[in-house]
Amino acid sequence: MSASPTITDYLKQCAAETDKALLESLPQHWEVPGTLRESMAYSLSAGGKKIRPALVLTAAEAVAGSLEARRQALPIACAVEHIHTYSLIHDDLPAMDNDDYRRGRLTNHKVFGEAMAILAGDALLTHAFYLISRGGREAGLEPSTMLAIVEDLSMLAGAPGMVGGQVADMQGEQGITGLSQLEYIHLHKTGDLIAFSAMAGGRVGGATERQLELLGRYGRTLGLAFQIQDDILDLVGDEAKLGKPVNSDIEGQKVTYPFLIGLEESKRLASKLTEEAKGCIQEAGFTRPERLLQLADYLIKRDH
Amino acid sequence: MSASPTITDYLKQCAAETDKALLESLPQHWEVPGTLRESMAYSLSAGGKKIRPALVLTAAEAVAGSLEARRQALPIACAVEHIHTYSLIHDDLPAMDNDDYRRGRLTNHKVFGEAMAILAGDALLTHAFYLISRGGREAGLEPSTMLAIVEDLSMLAGAPGMVGGQVADMQGEQGITGLSQLEYIHLHKTGDLIAFSAMAGGRVGGATERQLELLGRYGRTLGLAFQIQDDILDLVGDEAKLGKPVNSDIEGQKVTYPFLIGLEESKRLASKLTEEAKGCIQEAGFTRPERLLQLADYLIKRDH
Repeated sequence: MSASPTITDYLKQCAAETDKALLESLPQHWEVPGTLRESMAYSLSAGGKKIRPALVLTAAEAVAGSLEARRQALPIACAVEHIHTYSLIHDDLPAMDNDDYRRGRLTNHKVFGEAMAILAGDALLTHAFYLISRGGREAGLEPSTMLAIVEDLSMLAGAPGMVGGQVADMQGEQGITGLSQLEYIHLHKTGDLIAFSAMAGGRVGGATERQLELLGRYGRTLGLAFQIQDDILDLVGDEAKLGKPVNSDIEGQKVTYPFLIGLEESKRLASKLTEEAKGCIQEAGFTRPERLLQLADYLIKRDH
Repeated sequence: MSASPTITDYLKQCAAETDKALLESLPQHWEVPGTLRESMAYSLSAGGKKIRPALVLTAAEAVAGSLEARRQALPIACAVEHIHTYSLIHDDLPAMDNDDYRRGRLTNHKVFGEAMAILAGDALLTHAFYLISRGGREAGLEPSTMLAIVEDLSMLAGAPGMVGGQVADMQGEQGITGLSQLEYIHLHKTGDLIAFSAMAGGRVGGATERQLELLGRYGRTLGLAFQIQDDILDLVGDEAKLGKPVNSDIEGQKVTYPFLIGLEESKRLASKLTEEAKGCIQEAGFTRPERLLQLADYLIKRDH
């Protein structure tokens, strides 16, 4: 392992792999209104750490122990980035969080207008399923594997998953009463798509049912830890690194983990969840578990 | 055929079948925020003729010649209604058409607020793919059939299909220059989802590639005819029947077929397209083509 890249470099490599594939993900020969294409591409190419695609690729390789599985997982990695991107575009809308900036750039609706932002989000969401079905077929995935991935995504990104979490978050702004409500929000708004990413990679790699269950738990737990860490960074982070005003959540009356249980207890909880996530991977008996373990540590140690 | 129901009664029967299945389409045991569930159900149960689901069911039966194929097509019929419903919710938003009423009832965002309407639309769109993959599996469809349906839908409802048509429509409000632009809008905004419906039913029924092509042409042509007829009805229809002010499109400066080529020529074109659509069905050699032929006639003769 001594010669292999650090986890930071490894993640950059995953992001570059994904970015390259994303560029080609909307077929050039398709007759799509120019502004719609631009609006979709604008948000897809907005940077970001691409943690979810990295998880798809890494889980596929971890389970199968081969770079071939990783290659086959690439359209699925693009699909999850489409879903994540659409959710950010819709979240930023005036009717929702009303954000003008995202990752230091103007949000989609500030550039293309609200109607186009809504439609670009719809198109990205729909296109994710094209990438799984058509992209997966071209990558040589089995029909049953692709269908299981479609089913997982339709649940984990939908009403009982990510969208449900977003609704709960929105309603929570009118007053969160306790930890269980905050946990529900984070588990669904963030955890479900991360769980999907780990499981989808596992499916491509040929994971057993037990391994898929462990990958799902790994993802959900990691998603919760990630979100608590986000709350912590928001409290202690510095503006330049985050690209938004520190404490913006508290100013906006947003209830967070540090707000509810204190900063130190939040840190302890995030560490505990990270260890739990790593435990799932250790238990699963994968051929190449290292990167999944490092990824868990990376997420808790990141400073942005 | 003399004892069989009229096409109007037949369509009511299809709608009732679909409505019953739609009621059960979001699993009760799923933990979904109550308001999200209500918002989705509100628009799903808003009535409407359910032409698209009827086409799915009818095409399946036409191709396979069996009621069994029709039963298997039911989750796909529900999926297409989810897509249609989400597109109406998003179209009605203030940033888009800004409509307060739809089918005589308040639009989704007037009842549940803009944020919830956006999210309910997102959830319905996502759930369509659950209905195809999970619903289709429970109905005993082949994985390859379901995957082909996912792929078709992701294209025909996405950027190169329905969403692209919606974008073109929106941009066209700033000035449509000619027929080809109006045709592009209608073919994609309306035609693609109708084409999908006919093809998806065909796939369930086991259509050949040639038959699928003909079903696609039938749907696209019918979609265009449907939209021209809509333009005509909007011009000559009466308020009570349509549930919206007559001539609202012209007041809103919206360019229509009658506006561009005149009322009589529009009627002739709609008839010609309907005959073309019927020709596709006659050419395809289906076991039970009658209802597909009647459906084409019904759409052109309807007065609302």
